[in-house]
Amino acid sequence: MSTAGKVIKCKAAVAWEPNKPLVIEEIEVAPPEANEVRIKIVATGLCHTELYHLYEGMPKDGFPTVLGHEGAGIVESVGPGVTEFQPGDKVIPLSISQCKECRFCKSPKTNQCELAWKRVCLETMKGMETRFTCKGKKIFQFIGTSTFSEYTVINKIAVAKIDPAAPLDKVCLIGCGICTGYGAAVNTAKVEPGSTCAVFGLGAVGLAAVMGCKAAGAKRIIAVDINPEKADKAKVLGATDYVNPKDHNKPIHEVLAEMTNGGVDFSVECVGRVDVMRSALESCLPAWGVCVIVGWTKKFDVPIRPPDLIAGRTLKGSLFGGFRSKDGVPQMVKAYMDKKLQLDEFITHNMTLDQVNDAIELMKHGKCVRVVMSVSPQ
Amino acid sequence: MSTAGKVIKCKAAVAWEPNKPLVIEEIEVAPPEANEVRIKIVATGLCHTELYHLYEGMPKDGFPTVLGHEGAGIVESVGPGVTEFQPGDKVIPLSISQCKECRFCKSPKTNQCELAWKRVCLETMKGMETRFTCKGKKIFQFIGTSTFSEYTVINKIAVAKIDPAAPLDKVCLIGCGICTGYGAAVNTAKVEPGSTCAVFGLGAVGLAAVMGCKAAGAKRIIAVDINPEKADKAKVLGATDYVNPKDHNKPIHEVLAEMTNGGVDFSVECVGRVDVMRSALESCLPAWGVCVIVGWTKKFDVPIRPPDLIAGRTLKGSLFGGFRSKDGVPQMVKAYMDKKLQLDEFITHNMTLDQVNDAIELMKHGKCVRVVMSVSPQ
Repeated sequence: MSTAGKVIKCKAAVAWEPNKPLVIEEIEVAPPEANEVRIKIVATGLCHTELYHLYEGMPKDGFPTVLGHEGAGIVESVGPGVTEFQPGDKVIPLSISQCKECRFCKSPKTNQCELAWKRVCLETMKGMETRFTCKGKKIFQFIGTSTFSEYTVINKIAVAKIDPAAPLDKVCLIGCGICTGYGAAVNTAKVEPGSTCAVFGLGAVGLAAVMGCKAAGAKRIIAVDINPEKADKAKVLGATDYVNPKDHNKPIHEVLAEMTNGGVDFSVECVGRVDVMRSALESCLPAWGVCVIVGWTKKFDVPIRPPDLIAGRTLKGSLFGGFRSKDGVPQMVKAYMDKKLQLDEFITHNMTLDQVNDAIELMKHGKCVRVVMSVSPQ
Repeated sequence: MSTAGKVIKCKAAVAWEPNKPLVIEEIEVAPPEANEVRIKIVATGLCHTELYHLYEGMPKDGFPTVLGHEGAGIVESVGPGVTEFQPGDKVIPLSISQCKECRFCKSPKTNQCELAWKRVCLETMKGMETRFTCKGKKIFQFIGTSTFSEYTVINKIAVAKIDPAAPLDKVCLIGCGICTGYGAAVNTAKVEPGSTCAVFGLGAVGLAAVMGCKAAGAKRIIAVDINPEKADKAKVLGATDYVNPKDHNKPIHEVLAEMTNGGVDFSVECVGRVDVMRSALESCLPAWGVCVIVGWTKKFDVPIRPPDLIAGRTLKGSLFGGFRSKDGVPQMVKAYMDKKLQLDEFITHNMTLDQVNDAIELMKHGKCVRVVMSVSPQ
């Protein structure tokens, strides 16, 4: 019996308040309104951004919410004005939209959508539209997605249709971490063939950046992390060297300068710590080194020495790896299907949504690369 | 009677110690050694970098020195191994060299010369070669040039030969301020036709950046300075708007965002204050705004918010406006001779080297754009 047009009662992991475990609840998911798509989420990754919201960002008006933004699913029904999607389509929700109509989307100079930052509502979700309720309360949708729910409703500008043959429990990772890291190297840093790169932080994003550096033809890829357990995985994905800052008495940028005759051509910061961001910039060769910041933090400023820039370095940021989300995600899925992109190597644990708090514990302690949780049966 | 091969006794303005007036002294200038050129300085500008060394940087081993690095002159004699220059050639000394042989000079990605930073010896001049002595003491050559002297000796990698018809009392400004500002807009920011720009700081460098923005085809150029006396000059050089941060109760980046529908495409910081550098970055449009730091300071770090970068902004530094010095300076001289570059508008005062302390006072109090001092008779 079709569920189209009806409220769906389903299971979701609700974050009622910051700093607390998520709670599996039955929520109500309203039908999609104009230009919206209701999606049955089949699988979802857990990304550090969830932990950031829960334990670091903790915005006052950011709870209760259903977290999760690295998912994949199947269209259940569509609202008025949606012709691009049909029930049954395989899709990936996009935490950054691509409306294709704003001045940002129309410019070749950026992957950002002018609507995205408004939709995402990181500061406060108070004015945010949501189709979720639980126990009579409005539940916010985290960065416009909420994949820790069997069903979610998303504006069509933030949904990508993908290959119907794609395995959702793998390609869900393309919804955030993989594109973010891979693209930071390929699209934002524009890593060049034969170049020397350093990647700081070997979580899924950093490992994807390593993979991106390799895909771009870097000759030398130095993976940097204080957790030596990450070294092997980095090498599987293309790192030529692993450096643990704890093994050295001098600052890491000096270690890298010695290894590389003065500094790397490209560095990518995937930690979200301002001291590491500064190190990543300092690790670049003067004259032309490019440092890309991927890690997110709002708590502190990065202290940058002006002479480090004047010596010829460039500092950039990268959101979703510089991919235009709606165009880029299907291309990345295709790359995986064509065996040009590694994904399976990132998945260290398979779980179910019921185990989300266990997944969070693994990530907190650096014990996983990616946990993929099954959400709804396909 | 030829002076070639002999020590020349001549007049120079010596900075014996920081925070004190310069003293006009008779100094001895040794003949050029291998690969060196001895130059009779005809005219010199005064640049803020001199004031920085004297009153802010004040490096422990940076005195005594002869300041001045924005000069023009005539080759008096050359040392062994110099075939590119002949006595009588008109030349401009270069504070950043172009050796054409190092990996930086050979790369299309930078204007920096790997030897330049070593030659410049900003940190300490202790190990620096110099051909100057005064009262039996070795006198350092400021950033390898020292144009506040009737004669100076410079390595051939830091001398540009220019059009013999060029008026030295005008084109001397091409040796630093004009290239630095103009090139920051044209070469480093790569200002685009039809774009919106903001230039922070309307000293000679900032005014040259305004001129660069105009030459690059910017549609709107917003000149920002707390000194309203600079507004008219900025408009003469191409600014479409002038904004005085003191006229507003809100942060300057918010003022600019309102004026420009969200931010400028390009901003250039020509002040050397870290709070202004941060404002210049924040004034850029997210998605693709590019901020170029030109101002120099080592005292403080620029506090950069990571989300400002992740929103799509780029932060770069510019040294000598991204010009390869030896190639770029003669081209800029030609542009002036072809009436494609304004220089005369920058010269607010003509003085002699004897009046150097008066010139310093004018600059300290923002009462000049450029003072050009005649040094030796031509």
